[in-house]
Amino acid sequence: MIDLNDLITVLSRLPGVGRKSAARISYYLIKNKNNAIELSNIIKNAVENIKNCSVCGNFTINDPCFFCSAQDRDNSILCIVEDPKDLLAIEETALFRGRYHVLMGSINPLEGITPDKLRIKELLARIEKEKFSEILIATNPTIEGEATFLYLQSKLLNYDTKISRLATGIPMGGSLEYADKLTLSKAIQSKRYI
Amino acid sequence: MIDLNDLITVLSRLPGVGRKSAARISYYLIKNKNNAIELSNIIKNAVENIKNCSVCGNFTINDPCFFCSAQDRDNSILCIVEDPKDLLAIEETALFRGRYHVLMGSINPLEGITPDKLRIKELLARIEKEKFSEILIATNPTIEGEATFLYLQSKLLNYDTKISRLATGIPMGGSLEYADKLTLSKAIQSKRYI
Repeated sequence: MIDLNDLITVLSRLPGVGRKSAARISYYLIKNKNNAIELSNIIKNAVENIKNCSVCGNFTINDPCFFCSAQDRDNSILCIVEDPKDLLAIEETALFRGRYHVLMGSINPLEGITPDKLRIKELLARIEKEKFSEILIATNPTIEGEATFLYLQSKLLNYDTKISRLATGIPMGGSLEYADKLTLSKAIQSKRYI
Repeated sequence: MIDLNDLITVLSRLPGVGRKSAARISYYLIKNKNNAIELSNIIKNAVENIKNCSVCGNFTINDPCFFCSAQDRDNSILCIVEDPKDLLAIEETALFRGRYHVLMGSINPLEGITPDKLRIKELLARIEKEKFSEILIATNPTIEGEATFLYLQSKLLNYDTKISRLATGIPMGGSLEYADKLTLSKAIQSKRYI
């Protein structure tokens, strides 16, 4: 038999949910039984039906996914991201209309995520086949993202393809005063002449 | 068929979970299918088995609940709280060993929560029967909690029982500088001679 504590414990394992929020959510669920049953069903249904797109690796119900099956996207440029949520973030800018490839993580040897755990083999096979003229590596500017970038760069040098990456620098709306030293250093190194 | 967006939408309805956290949790669930199925089962099982204690109203699997069935608690003092989580907060101090009564909310006419929606009828029946010598009203120091306190006070004046309430004032570890005016005013009004 499940008691309230089990529910709180399981909820507090979710990312960004501490013990206090887990308790709050638990009380909400117990008080709102219909919403709780709906949530329970949707979680089960979602994990049973959502799979990785066989082309780009993104989460999807239909295979190939929305982005890979869209007819109106540019087949000459490929954007490589770590995670489906990075893909969504880029998509929200509406500035990229090419194809995506989702690595499903970034290189992190301490957590046992070596390059062979990522969808890099699939990436290279795709590059062989689809002949992109440009590849935009949109990994995160973190230690793991940088490691992944360097690894990909070494692999992609063998191909006759332009390689680009996202600009790093002071975020819009940010201020120099609060920018960390590394970000400010990168911004100075990447200064643009106007 | 459920897609990722449905999952994000349902998760973002949970208290304290915004759209961004809901997306993060969704990706976590899809990547960790076993945890997701476990969570789904536990939510369903919990809402199906957890009910209100017939004595105090607290959430419980066994009726009467742990606090009402404990033999080693003081039957002469009753603590009235708004919510099960307030009960837990008081219990964690280990300074109260009496019985509890959970109102399951506080008076909030704007949201349609009038006194008859709370477990006040049950409270009064209990007071008639159990003859407490003291009743500690531990509602929150919010507008709704104060309204509930005043309502309860008016009802309890008919009984020959000592009524007490939690002290309000500057929180421990807080500073006068950052205390809001109302809290500071209350602290001055309730000054203690030493």
